[in-house]
Amino acid sequence: MELIMKDGERIDDLQLKGLRIIQDKSKFCFGTDAILLSSFARVNSGDMVADLGTGTGIIPILLCGKTNARYIRGIEIQHDMVDMARRSVALNELEDRVDISEGDIKIAHAYLEAGSFDVVVSNPPYKKVGSGIVNPNDKKAIARHEILCTLKDVISAASRLLRFGGRFSMVHRPDRLIDIVCGMREYNIEPKRIQMVHKNQSKPPSLVLIEGILGGKPSIDCLPPLFIYDEEGNYTPQLCKI
Amino acid sequence: MELIMKDGERIDDLQLKGLRIIQDKSKFCFGTDAILLSSFARVNSGDMVADLGTGTGIIPILLCGKTNARYIRGIEIQHDMVDMARRSVALNELEDRVDISEGDIKIAHAYLEAGSFDVVVSNPPYKKVGSGIVNPNDKKAIARHEILCTLKDVISAASRLLRFGGRFSMVHRPDRLIDIVCGMREYNIEPKRIQMVHKNQSKPPSLVLIEGILGGKPSIDCLPPLFIYDEEGNYTPQLCKI
Repeated sequence: MELIMKDGERIDDLQLKGLRIIQDKSKFCFGTDAILLSSFARVNSGDMVADLGTGTGIIPILLCGKTNARYIRGIEIQHDMVDMARRSVALNELEDRVDISEGDIKIAHAYLEAGSFDVVVSNPPYKKVGSGIVNPNDKKAIARHEILCTLKDVISAASRLLRFGGRFSMVHRPDRLIDIVCGMREYNIEPKRIQMVHKNQSKPPSLVLIEGILGGKPSIDCLPPLFIYDEEGNYTPQLCKI
Repeated sequence: MELIMKDGERIDDLQLKGLRIIQDKSKFCFGTDAILLSSFARVNSGDMVADLGTGTGIIPILLCGKTNARYIRGIEIQHDMVDMARRSVALNELEDRVDISEGDIKIAHAYLEAGSFDVVVSNPPYKKVGSGIVNPNDKKAIARHEILCTLKDVISAASRLLRFGGRFSMVHRPDRLIDIVCGMREYNIEPKRIQMVHKNQSKPPSLVLIEGILGGKPSIDCLPPLFIYDEEGNYTPQLCKI
């Protein structure tokens, strides 16, 4: 296969079964959050998975390495991210398991069948659009700020795409926790499992991982906290396992 | 002052400014949750405070020792708990700062002025009434199970009693987290501060401390986790401070 690379792009090794990814620093590179989410999400053998706002395609590619998902559909609105993600899928020869669709998740039900996914995952933009300091044409800004889709858009899309009993896993900022869980309940996704991620033991959480079940019964399982670094500043055994 | 003690009662030293409390093992004794809540709740000098379901009066008495609250009203539905709590108030000569009312929090607005409290606290019954194994005449069961008041009753009462901008602090079981935060939002109490309490670092949380503000804006402050024991099984410095 001939691989076309564009100006500013590089190939990074994912340290997982030889998987690699194409990234461009000037656009958006994946972070710890994507890795944590791909480990947190429960994906069973044969599952159909959708990733809302897939960006570089990092989550579908990691899920191919970590799970026996039958098929993973990544949805991304930014044309050149779609192009880059598709080339990463080809680079890993994952065309039979991963498909990257260019589209707006707000109208995902127009091009994807409702109720057809076992699992939906998302690492959405975290920040509310505030005082106007955000450049809406900036590709990084679109990935980080709720310019093209809000938290509610993501939850609403997940709710439509999931089969009854299907699981929605998301990573987000802890300060949005209440918007997340109340939003999920509003769209009939009952939050069932939550884990806070902390830089270290004495720090407040920097990320929250949460899983809800479409039509699930109330009662949430709060997991032990996940610490990234120990007291000496080394990665914790918990994190190394991920 | 002549102190009347009843059969089965004992006096416990609270290790705080000489404060003491009357308890009866056959009824209900306070636990770590009450102590944690009285430290977690932010009570400013001069505040008017209500404690919903005060039981032995432990929280009003601890708040007298820890804060400069002007006045704390404990509300309790069980007559003999009210009687015991009143005697504890007298034992500590706190009659000028603490008043114990016998009443049902579901109709607290009938005997307390709405919107008149700066702070409301509650350590409510944790368990849903389920399969009928609970004896509804058991005083311990009333304190532990939602027989006479549900989580929603507590939140609704807090919402009515608080002034706009007033703070509601509660301790509860983590598995009820979603009911708690969505219930708070439903009654216009925005969850603003949360802390998970764990037996130790590797355990899931056993309690959640949460504070909401009546009419507050969305965005929650997630505190570092609170660990009760360290790796050797000793109390952590965090806990000793409390």
